[in-house]
Amino acid sequence: MSLAEETIITPKWVMTLESEELLVGHSVIIGKDVILAILPNEQALKTYPNAKHIFLPQQMLMPGFVNCHGHAAMNLFKGLADDLPLMTWLEEHIWPAEGQWVNEQFVADGTKLAISEMLLSGTTCFSDMYFFPEVVAEVSASMNMRAICYGPILNFPTPYGSGPDEYFDKILAAHDKFKHQPLIDIGFGPHAPYTVSDEPLKKVRMLSDQLKMPIQIHLHETEFEVSDALEKTGKRPSQRLDDLNFWGPDVQAVHVTQLNQQDIDIFKKAGTHVIHCPESNLKLASGFCPTHELQTAQINVALGTDGAASNNDLDMLSEMHSAALIAKAVSKDASALPALEAVKMATINGAIALGKEDQIGSIKVGKQADLISIDFSDISCAPMYDPISQLVYSASRHQVDHVWVAGHLQVKNKTLCHVDTAQLMEMAQEWADKISSKT
Amino acid sequence: MSLAEETIITPKWVMTLESEELLVGHSVIIGKDVILAILPNEQALKTYPNAKHIFLPQQMLMPGFVNCHGHAAMNLFKGLADDLPLMTWLEEHIWPAEGQWVNEQFVADGTKLAISEMLLSGTTCFSDMYFFPEVVAEVSASMNMRAICYGPILNFPTPYGSGPDEYFDKILAAHDKFKHQPLIDIGFGPHAPYTVSDEPLKKVRMLSDQLKMPIQIHLHETEFEVSDALEKTGKRPSQRLDDLNFWGPDVQAVHVTQLNQQDIDIFKKAGTHVIHCPESNLKLASGFCPTHELQTAQINVALGTDGAASNNDLDMLSEMHSAALIAKAVSKDASALPALEAVKMATINGAIALGKEDQIGSIKVGKQADLISIDFSDISCAPMYDPISQLVYSASRHQVDHVWVAGHLQVKNKTLCHVDTAQLMEMAQEWADKISSKT
Repeated sequence: MSLAEETIITPKWVMTLESEELLVGHSVIIGKDVILAILPNEQALKTYPNAKHIFLPQQMLMPGFVNCHGHAAMNLFKGLADDLPLMTWLEEHIWPAEGQWVNEQFVADGTKLAISEMLLSGTTCFSDMYFFPEVVAEVSASMNMRAICYGPILNFPTPYGSGPDEYFDKILAAHDKFKHQPLIDIGFGPHAPYTVSDEPLKKVRMLSDQLKMPIQIHLHETEFEVSDALEKTGKRPSQRLDDLNFWGPDVQAVHVTQLNQQDIDIFKKAGTHVIHCPESNLKLASGFCPTHELQTAQINVALGTDGAASNNDLDMLSEMHSAALIAKAVSKDASALPALEAVKMATINGAIALGKEDQIGSIKVGKQADLISIDFSDISCAPMYDPISQLVYSASRHQVDHVWVAGHLQVKNKTLCHVDTAQLMEMAQEWADKISSKT
Repeated sequence: MSLAEETIITPKWVMTLESEELLVGHSVIIGKDVILAILPNEQALKTYPNAKHIFLPQQMLMPGFVNCHGHAAMNLFKGLADDLPLMTWLEEHIWPAEGQWVNEQFVADGTKLAISEMLLSGTTCFSDMYFFPEVVAEVSASMNMRAICYGPILNFPTPYGSGPDEYFDKILAAHDKFKHQPLIDIGFGPHAPYTVSDEPLKKVRMLSDQLKMPIQIHLHETEFEVSDALEKTGKRPSQRLDDLNFWGPDVQAVHVTQLNQQDIDIFKKAGTHVIHCPESNLKLASGFCPTHELQTAQINVALGTDGAASNNDLDMLSEMHSAALIAKAVSKDASALPALEAVKMATINGAIALGKEDQIGSIKVGKQADLISIDFSDISCAPMYDPISQLVYSASRHQVDHVWVAGHLQVKNKTLCHVDTAQLMEMAQEWADKISSKT
């Protein structure tokens, strides 16, 4: 047993999420990529006398955030076009910019920027739906970041390919390429009901069943999406996909600002998960996801930031805060989505949605050491009555001070350990200068 | 002219809010408490060769935030009771805790904590409605913080006094005591239509007219407040107060989640201002203030955090972010409340609401030097297409790095210049320990 193999982390509080109680006077011991033990401090020192020891006397140790929906590379478009009506934003800014600029280098650079921002704000696993998922996977693996990369399926050509056939080929090749990389999963990302026809959706279901690949789809993002589908097909999108046997526990439906009892019944029967992106839904005026109704129906709800072009940050603490606040006003009940529930949405519920709850989402012996610490020595968190309340209602991303992914220390004292941030920001600015001068 | 009297501040961008354009290559020169000049960098150096010089090469200099509504001392109750229905929260937690704990020392300590938190997050002027306004004023003056302190008027006894007569006496005495203190104003804070009867409201109007004292009142915070008033008096609260000739351009109506055309007509005719507290309205499930309708009717809307017990921070950047996002979803228009409008709500509109637009709220020669700088060398703000978008949609309070109030440097490199933060947090924790053991 070498010195470097084990680390004892001794914070002020441990939030395991395996119970509702915070542990005080306890240490978490990690070895290689996993959580070895959770022990009272003295016992930890006795049991692991040669371990490296990290003291976090003002901090809470908790599971890293699981960001269940985004388009990482769009970080390079962050702030390019804001405060515009949805269709103007898409048709006159985002789609033309994507058409002009998105290639493998763009995706590699944008993803690297996004992963750095996510790590600094406490995200240890992200789920991404974007062109060139094999590049997202490559960059994530090289940065030791956990990622689920959904390759896009659409009816029409994009910078990624000519149409469904080419998309399927490339996604399956990526799946094959990364099958032995433990931090990476490749899945299918049929973009949305209105951009993918029945045949590719049925093929997604078939291949997913055969290869155990997860699926993510934008669904019921706006009122228009549903009314338009009703007019054209006589069915709500949820119903049309149900008729195709598309839904299952391996699918995440993203956004869902439109929900009725039929939708609830469909999701519930299929075990499908809902990914709530509160800030994106607000910013694009898409509407409000009725999380309270979903949770009452025992449908798993997890959180995502969406891409930076519609948010404009990748900050899960802020997303958790927004989710907790909005749920109260939307349900007209100040006790809706209490702080602990919001934390679960940002961690263990995300792990469940992505089918990874045996590996991540809580602090449990044998699970992966995806951990973060939150520094509570911030004036906005004083005085301290309840660390969970302070985390959700008072803390900011700049209080995330240590981050481990699979036992690998990524952020130490609020600084990235393996990324030259200044260089990264320069690279991002070069893209922005190019894009704004020629778009 | 001594060396210390003038300071040249040279940031990357200056957002004056006197025009829509950001200035680049410009410096702001401050002398004693005022803004002396705004000049191109070279000219600034030539004109003021002996001035102190502060370079902020990654920063934007802008007017400090004006937090138009809060209860500063309630900072000591932050996180004491969250996620509870409104009446349980008030009747079983907040009111009993106030009855048991609020005294002059509590208000002094809580206000000191709140001012420190506000300064660190870029607020340079706050408007406060709480017991012992003379203590709030004293603490603010001693910390060189700009404050408008509204003394509470209610029908019933509180720790501050036995009823309206005593409240009026004490508020008038405070007004007299601070009449020569340039950073402090004392005003009347009739709590809400449902807690103050007609006679004290008429007296507020009369005294305010005579003494030019501002007025702040909670109004239409919840649906129940309006329906209950309609049932009991046959009038909406806005109408009842209009019949008393209560409204005027010296009044700020706080919350206003319930709004109809009649309310709009009343506010508009009177020149009354609306203070929007988006996060408090969400957290207490009070509802949504229709800022879009108010602004369309050209009613001045400014922002407030409300007290920390219902927020739970005093972070105007976050409030601005929430206001901009919610306005879009509520009005179903992604172009509603664009970033620059949100910044104005947090600065110049606040100055207008408080009747202080000749002194603060924008960067203009002759106005008070209430300035803050925002550090954009944060990965969440990269790349940079538009500093105003990044400020509203991406930045966090931890990027506020310099703060001046009336020319007095309060925060330097993200650290308070004149407050021992650790000692302050210890003091706050002593209160919390006492309160949680005995409440």
